[in-house]
Amino acid sequence: MDRLAVALTALDYGAVAVFGATGALAAARRKHDIITFGFFAAVTGVGGGTLRDVLIGAPVFWVGRPTYLVVCLTAAAAVWIVGPRRFRGSILTWLDALGMAAYAVVGALKAGSLGVPPVSAIVMGVLTATFGGVIRDVLAHEPSVLLRRELYVTPALAGAATFVVLGLVGTPTAPAGVAGFVMALTLRAGAILWKWSLPGFGGQTDAEG
Amino acid sequence: MDRLAVALTALDYGAVAVFGATGALAAARRKHDIITFGFFAAVTGVGGGTLRDVLIGAPVFWVGRPTYLVVCLTAAAAVWIVGPRRFRGSILTWLDALGMAAYAVVGALKAGSLGVPPVSAIVMGVLTATFGGVIRDVLAHEPSVLLRRELYVTPALAGAATFVVLGLVGTPTAPAGVAGFVMALTLRAGAILWKWSLPGFGGQTDAEG
Amino acid sequence: MDRLAVALTALDYGAVAVFGATGALAAARRKHDIITFGFFAAVTGVGGGTLRDVLIGAPVFWVGRPTYLVVCLTAAAAVWIVGPRRFRGSILTWLDALGMAAYAVVGALKAGSLGVPPVSAIVMGVLTATFGGVIRDVLAHEPSVLLRRELYVTPALAGAATFVVLGLVGTPTAPAGVAGFVMALTLRAGAILWKWSLPGFGGQTDAEG
Repeated sequence: MDRLAVALTALDYGAVAVFGATGALAAARRKHDIITFGFFAAVTGVGGGTLRDVLIGAPVFWVGRPTYLVVCLTAAAAVWIVGPRRFRGSILTWLDALGMAAYAVVGALKAGSLGVPPVSAIVMGVLTATFGGVIRDVLAHEPSVLLRRELYVTPALAGAATFVVLGLVGTPTAPAGVAGFVMALTLRAGAILWKWSLPGFGGQTDAEG
Repeated sequence: MDRLAVALTALDYGAVAVFGATGALAAARRKHDIITFGFFAAVTGVGGGTLRDVLIGAPVFWVGRPTYLVVCLTAAAAVWIVGPRRFRGSILTWLDALGMAAYAVVGALKAGSLGVPPVSAIVMGVLTATFGGVIRDVLAHEPSVLLRRELYVTPALAGAATFVVLGLVGTPTAPAGVAGFVMALTLRAGAILWKWSLPGFGGQTDAEG
Repeated sequence: MDRLAVALTALDYGAVAVFGATGALAAARRKHDIITFGFFAAVTGVGGGTLRDVLIGAPVFWVGRPTYLVVCLTAAAAVWIVGPRRFRGSILTWLDALGMAAYAVVGALKAGSLGVPPVSAIVMGVLTATFGGVIRDVLAHEPSVLLRRELYVTPALAGAATFVVLGLVGTPTAPAGVAGFVMALTLRAGAILWKWSLPGFGGQTDAEG
């Protein structure tokens, strides 16, 4: 349980940092000021985990431990300082993929550790993984990442399900978590690089509503 | 209290199923894949009740009992299998009306059963009834159902108020709930079929902002 | 603590009333009916404080005390009765500024009084102050106030930080709260009247993404 807590914390910090950076990058695209950078970084960074904690009735993780916020603000400052030349559009996509994969595991892990049933723990992983990006996109008044045709929910689901099912059959938390993370990231990477997708409703795969 | 719990559960399942189907239909209009179908169905189906539970401080209803999620996924699968030919645009509107009417009652019922004052219980019914659709529309990046000129909030309010007031004057839960449900559904049906509306601000009824 | 509770309640009512009025004004611009007026007023009025209470794990303030809702509905009725001629576009902006400044202080005050660490209390002030307007704008399917180039997050941050830091160095709650409120309102007023802004990312201040 102690090592579980350590892993949970490490994954939380990692996901918070990369989602925070994507929030700052979304602010960068609109040429916002440094304070709005920090705001977008904070809301995006902690948004997914906040939803998870509210849904499972746990104290919201960053409220009592504001170092999470400092991590977000540091990510925002890093984006600001490194500047726009270094960031092509694709880096937001890849950071988002990393954060999504981490949260798919950490969302399911924390939910499971608090006694949430396996199916709900998987869903919690999916919700946590996808809502960071959704909140960022809604705040930025952009179509959410959910609406793109490439795989996004599917990698999160596969990662969370891999982690939970491996745990159910007795795999220790660390390798199960790594397997879930790799599964989510691999599917998402395929979606980004080679436009992997599942058949759309009605059989068309080319339409966009 | 036992029969109350049964009624609450039945209404919850019903509202979850029809809202879940509307979420899947929203995904269908954009030709999403089966996983995104399930995601939209789940978020839309449980969204209203989740908001209610978070606001009244109750454990979120589906977290400990994932059969609600299975209901949503079944609704999504049904929409997927039956296919687009069977679903004209209007069916989403009617399923949404059913879910709205059910949640107007069940939102007020659960809030009231946990000691929330009558006025807040009515508001909880309205919020629960309308936020399932709002969350779906925000996720789908569409103007929310609240912005249409036809009655939508009003039927939810009338249904929740009917239920709560009948309960205050001593009507048993079951007939009061049926009356509230019928009230909400009737007003919403009138809005859908005959464009019932209240006068808009400034006296114009034809304008759209 | 007693006077703290009184101040908290007074500020809560004030912020709820002015944010409620901005919600009703948003509904007015779309010529909605009186019920939708009330709905927008209620959601906008209590939205920021609701988020605060959910995040810090406190009972949501208006659920047990529905007079807050009555305040919102009164604000909505006032907007309806006074009518559109009296309201130029700018009044929504100014009421929003008042509500933002009040919530920056009251959000930090309530969080701090429940033992939240200072950094989180400041963030809570910022989130509470800005999310009333964000929820209103998202519901109205408009670009949120966060996306404008003028200062909005910055005044909320300055107000909340002023209040919390003054409290840390021993200033009594009342003058610290007034100082925070005035700080937030002054910066926001400068942003509204003279387009005060911080430099945007990349050095450009004229671009809009």
